[in-house]
Amino acid sequence: MKKFLNTADSFLADSLAGLGAAHPALRVDIENRVVTRSEGVADGRVALVSGGGSGHEPLHAGFVGDGMLAAACPGEIFTSPVPDQMLAAAAAVDTGAGVVFVVKNYTGDVMNFDMAADLAGDDGIRVETVLVDDDVAVQDSTFTAGRRGTGATLLVEKIAGAAAERGDGLGVVADIGRRVNAASRSFAVALTASTTPGADRPGFDLPEDEIEVGVGIHGEPGRSREKMRPADEIVADMMAAILADHRDLGSGSDAIVLVNGMGATPLSELYLVYGRVAAILADHGVTIARNLVGDYVTSLDMAGCSITVCKAEESFVHLWDAPVRTPSLRWGI
Amino acid sequence: MKKFLNTADSFLADSLAGLGAAHPALRVDIENRVVTRSEGVADGRVALVSGGGSGHEPLHAGFVGDGMLAAACPGEIFTSPVPDQMLAAAAAVDTGAGVVFVVKNYTGDVMNFDMAADLAGDDGIRVETVLVDDDVAVQDSTFTAGRRGTGATLLVEKIAGAAAERGDGLGVVADIGRRVNAASRSFAVALTASTTPGADRPGFDLPEDEIEVGVGIHGEPGRSREKMRPADEIVADMMAAILADHRDLGSGSDAIVLVNGMGATPLSELYLVYGRVAAILADHGVTIARNLVGDYVTSLDMAGCSITVCKAEESFVHLWDAPVRTPSLRWGI
Repeated sequence: MKKFLNTADSFLADSLAGLGAAHPALRVDIENRVVTRSEGVADGRVALVSGGGSGHEPLHAGFVGDGMLAAACPGEIFTSPVPDQMLAAAAAVDTGAGVVFVVKNYTGDVMNFDMAADLAGDDGIRVETVLVDDDVAVQDSTFTAGRRGTGATLLVEKIAGAAAERGDGLGVVADIGRRVNAASRSFAVALTASTTPGADRPGFDLPEDEIEVGVGIHGEPGRSREKMRPADEIVADMMAAILADHRDLGSGSDAIVLVNGMGATPLSELYLVYGRVAAILADHGVTIARNLVGDYVTSLDMAGCSITVCKAEESFVHLWDAPVRTPSLRWGI
Repeated sequence: MKKFLNTADSFLADSLAGLGAAHPALRVDIENRVVTRSEGVADGRVALVSGGGSGHEPLHAGFVGDGMLAAACPGEIFTSPVPDQMLAAAAAVDTGAGVVFVVKNYTGDVMNFDMAADLAGDDGIRVETVLVDDDVAVQDSTFTAGRRGTGATLLVEKIAGAAAERGDGLGVVADIGRRVNAASRSFAVALTASTTPGADRPGFDLPEDEIEVGVGIHGEPGRSREKMRPADEIVADMMAAILADHRDLGSGSDAIVLVNGMGATPLSELYLVYGRVAAILADHGVTIARNLVGDYVTSLDMAGCSITVCKAEESFVHLWDAPVRTPSLRWGI
């Protein structure tokens, strides 16, 4: 599989160097793998820190900036960052108001962020953790006890980030993040597998006429391997899984919806998927208050998409609309 | 090649329906294939209209909105829209101040936009045309007499769009668009070919160890088929082609740079490419005043990227920074 890279070993550093060159508003510490805002966090504000394996860009470093993350710590491809990175990030951005760790529910990430929280506590940094586990496809998975964290991570980072920006306290910001996660459900389908830089073949085999239904963002197996079929049928199945699990998303609910590309799916196809999602939610009496369509939580060069539906309290929509200025999500400023 | 679609025939309509559902600020006329701003164009403002074959999303419909295009007319995949679409778009958005057609230099587009301009003139609509032909790779090509129009289209639409928004007259807006095009050079490389919805194989054959150097956005052949090699070498060759042609981009120049993904290339790879572009321009004494890294002018699911370098007058940067609110380019509002 051809990729723009020099060596597999230098890939992440080379990519982070480019990120830093492109965005003066970010400070990219390539050696320690920590990305922060160049101008820091305003006095007295809670700081959101996230991180995880690389390969899901723009998540997380692309969401560092005013109104969203204070810092991100990227691990190697599909590999958790280490506690030292997380600790360095927390120490770099804590204003004294405390730090919220946004952690996708994968065993390695959870363990390392737990350790980092302990170390930060020893250094007098108050830490709250928001665990994201929105993927309804499977209960346990290759790298997960419990549900996987996927598309809702973006929603948690945006909405809790806006709460931090307006000056909410540590407990409040963390609580908002947890409520966003609790209100969110996701489901993904892969048309092709992704290939890790340096590997000579994709992470799994997927025949030309089959799809992986319920796939994870590292290519973890989903619920079933099925025959390819028309998009409307695929989307109907994805939405059925989400709605079956999302018991309190009833008629009259508002929702924030993310139709997310996994990396190699054209935007035209994502809009086609969104159209069907919108029709199905309308049939259920659900109003889509806000939406986002594009590549936000990817799996390298996987073709496929995920759908995330968050039952939106009015306060979520208000915080969603707050100004944000990051490399990959920006409005209002 | 698996895609999210129902039938090849319904693909474009289904995708446009989703675009309209996702963006209430757009009015999507699916039957006539015209996308306009829901709230129209402010009185007395010049209106920019663009269009071309579909398959390059977000170009052009994703750039309809305040501060950029007034309308887009998407053709079938890789096929020019017809004059009637362009005329309908012009008639829908003209405030009396005139319409600027932004036309990528492909034989079909040029012919059809010319015809539409004549028809619009007959209807009393004043039209100026800005032809985009920034691709230095080849002089003539499969679908082109002269150079192909590629990444610079985005720059023309943003910068001339901002001029229209602030109230510049028809001749001035068109002149700014032409100057942006004249100041821009692009070059693209494909790692894989794209597959058209409904086709059962990619548009051309590209072995696993070869790349198409100087490829067009429809997969047109470039300068040469070459062996895959490290990214830094590929980027050095792309930049050499651009700089050899860009004689007045010397030490002390400012530039606006676009590193553009062709559809299936991860953002992490695009940043890696950007880092090398920035280093090469720094070596040449060129300052990158503004940049954009991401998927903007795509070729369906092609893996590859293009580099566009625009020698930036101060006025270009000022107009670049002006607020813009479209589905796929947004800041300041």
